[in-house]
Amino acid sequence: MNEPQYHLFAEERLRTFATETFLYFGVPKPDAQQAADVLIAADLRGIDSHGVARLHTYFDMLQLGRINPKPNIRIVREKMSTATVDGDNGLGLVVGPKANQIAMEKAEKAGSGWVSVCNTNHYGIAGYYVLQALKRDMIGWAMTNSTKLVAPLWGAERMLGTNPIAIAFPGWEEPPIVIDMATSAAAYGKIEIAKRAGKAIPEGWIIDKDGNTSTNPSDMINGGALLPLGSDREHGGHKGYALAAMVDILCCVLSGANWGPFAPPFALRQEIPARSVGKGIGHFFGAMQIDGFMDVTTFKKQIDDWIRTFRATKPAPGTAGVLIPGDPEREAEAIRRQEGIPLIQAVVDDLLDISRQTGIPL
Amino acid sequence: MNEPQYHLFAEERLRTFATETFLYFGVPKPDAQQAADVLIAADLRGIDSHGVARLHTYFDMLQLGRINPKPNIRIVREKMSTATVDGDNGLGLVVGPKANQIAMEKAEKAGSGWVSVCNTNHYGIAGYYVLQALKRDMIGWAMTNSTKLVAPLWGAERMLGTNPIAIAFPGWEEPPIVIDMATSAAAYGKIEIAKRAGKAIPEGWIIDKDGNTSTNPSDMINGGALLPLGSDREHGGHKGYALAAMVDILCCVLSGANWGPFAPPFALRQEIPARSVGKGIGHFFGAMQIDGFMDVTTFKKQIDDWIRTFRATKPAPGTAGVLIPGDPEREAEAIRRQEGIPLIQAVVDDLLDISRQTGIPL
Repeated sequence: MNEPQYHLFAEERLRTFATETFLYFGVPKPDAQQAADVLIAADLRGIDSHGVARLHTYFDMLQLGRINPKPNIRIVREKMSTATVDGDNGLGLVVGPKANQIAMEKAEKAGSGWVSVCNTNHYGIAGYYVLQALKRDMIGWAMTNSTKLVAPLWGAERMLGTNPIAIAFPGWEEPPIVIDMATSAAAYGKIEIAKRAGKAIPEGWIIDKDGNTSTNPSDMINGGALLPLGSDREHGGHKGYALAAMVDILCCVLSGANWGPFAPPFALRQEIPARSVGKGIGHFFGAMQIDGFMDVTTFKKQIDDWIRTFRATKPAPGTAGVLIPGDPEREAEAIRRQEGIPLIQAVVDDLLDISRQTGIPL
Repeated sequence: MNEPQYHLFAEERLRTFATETFLYFGVPKPDAQQAADVLIAADLRGIDSHGVARLHTYFDMLQLGRINPKPNIRIVREKMSTATVDGDNGLGLVVGPKANQIAMEKAEKAGSGWVSVCNTNHYGIAGYYVLQALKRDMIGWAMTNSTKLVAPLWGAERMLGTNPIAIAFPGWEEPPIVIDMATSAAAYGKIEIAKRAGKAIPEGWIIDKDGNTSTNPSDMINGGALLPLGSDREHGGHKGYALAAMVDILCCVLSGANWGPFAPPFALRQEIPARSVGKGIGHFFGAMQIDGFMDVTTFKKQIDDWIRTFRATKPAPGTAGVLIPGDPEREAEAIRRQEGIPLIQAVVDDLLDISRQTGIPL
């Protein structure tokens, strides 16, 4: 197995291409730019699976009319610090930023804002949303459900998405702490990479279609499931399952979206769920004004102290020592802004296919 | 090694004893009853480490004047849906319920309420607080930091507490979903039990004092550390560390309490931290009115559907199938309300010692 070949693309080139692709389907210009901004943020931050690698899927869904390019995104219920938003089956990349903004606007008035969203689609990286809150001296929260891939502890089938949780805290001189984590033990992308490389995966990542643990990535892909964070009972797999359940309920039961195994598929080849229990998938956003709890400067300086204290932790043997959540993504971004975004041939082929079908030059 | 002997105590007998113990130190009667209620809830729910097994530690701290029996618990900063509370170094078992009530009262008005608390002490089980929110048709959240026991991923020393996260969602006919989980891979109590039994523990629970993984429980107790949920990098140990960091910051940096390795010790024999960076330890409470997002009955009926759907998951081989978060604690409570609370001899001895020193009959 050879190492994959990478092609480097300047951020702006990909941003323009993605924007044009959304415009092609009648997405209004500000929305198309917004959607491209979320996608490119993933590519810049090194989360390749959530960037332009997904553009062809959005393209497919728009082409088949399964996503509404001009949604009427509206608040269907609200109180001072809470709201439920119906995304009108728009792009998650457009619905997400709008709902997140509603959360932040509520926080400006009430100290905090919490928005649960139904009738939406995949929204890119959760980390994008919490970075917006930092600009307003807020603590940002973001969660989303997704198509089923993960088994609950002691289950033998896919019932939950990889349901990420993101939260961010601003520093003063130090860069922010940015947590953005799936609630599964390992990412689906890692299973696919191991399969392509013909390699075994660690115990604790997956089960096969009968619910037995396995180290063969094909066993997961062929009807098996990912395991939740913690993997097995002994290592806290019930905790990863509980976190995924929490995300599922906050995003979907609270908003009226499809929860658990009923989340609609994002890609064309995925199985259609047996039942519909709501509208689209769901997100959950939160924003808390730091000023609602503590002097903003004092808080940020304490975060600096926290970061420096944790960086100074005695390192474990054979490691580079303790990282701060957000370090790897920030380092990727610094490199990629300079050198460009590396895309594998398969992604370039996808983009070329869009180019061929739409006439948009890549 | 023999199995430990248990002595059964009626709930009311322990509740009265705990209440009297707090009263002995001048804790006002409603506060003493409240504190006992939190402790007994842990014993009823089967979380033995957080119930009357800790009464002697509260006793020691009160006797040494390290906890204020008559705190002036007050809001030091607030907005419509947020507040910071200073617990005036009171019992966490008293400060916690009061701060949680402030969160719920804010939620009654603003749709949600979020309270960060400094200058407090250990508050019992996080699950207690989120159960209160259910009575008001709210989604309850509770977190706390605690004395350092856990290493961040790739660290070789204790830097964080076991920092639990709790959240609960009410059902209609079904019992509520109650999540209450430490962010470490395993509980400290399990290390102690293995040590007493002379047994090895699973790989992934601990490191020794040099940061190497170990299966010898003594290695953790003698200057080692617990590992975060996920255990190692391959299994998502960075995620458990990130969750513990989130709890630490929401509870402590946001309120002005001692974060990370600077959390003050709870028990007498524990090391005094090198620095003080705030006041006491910290908690974080949240309450969200379901009605602020969705019709309450519709929500509860969807939760019933969620629970029944997840119970019907195909079970993994060799397991009893999927549980719902909160099942084990509810089952323990049903048994213990009937049969009494089982205490090991060491805990009975602790209570007898309190009885001897105070004259309160056990």
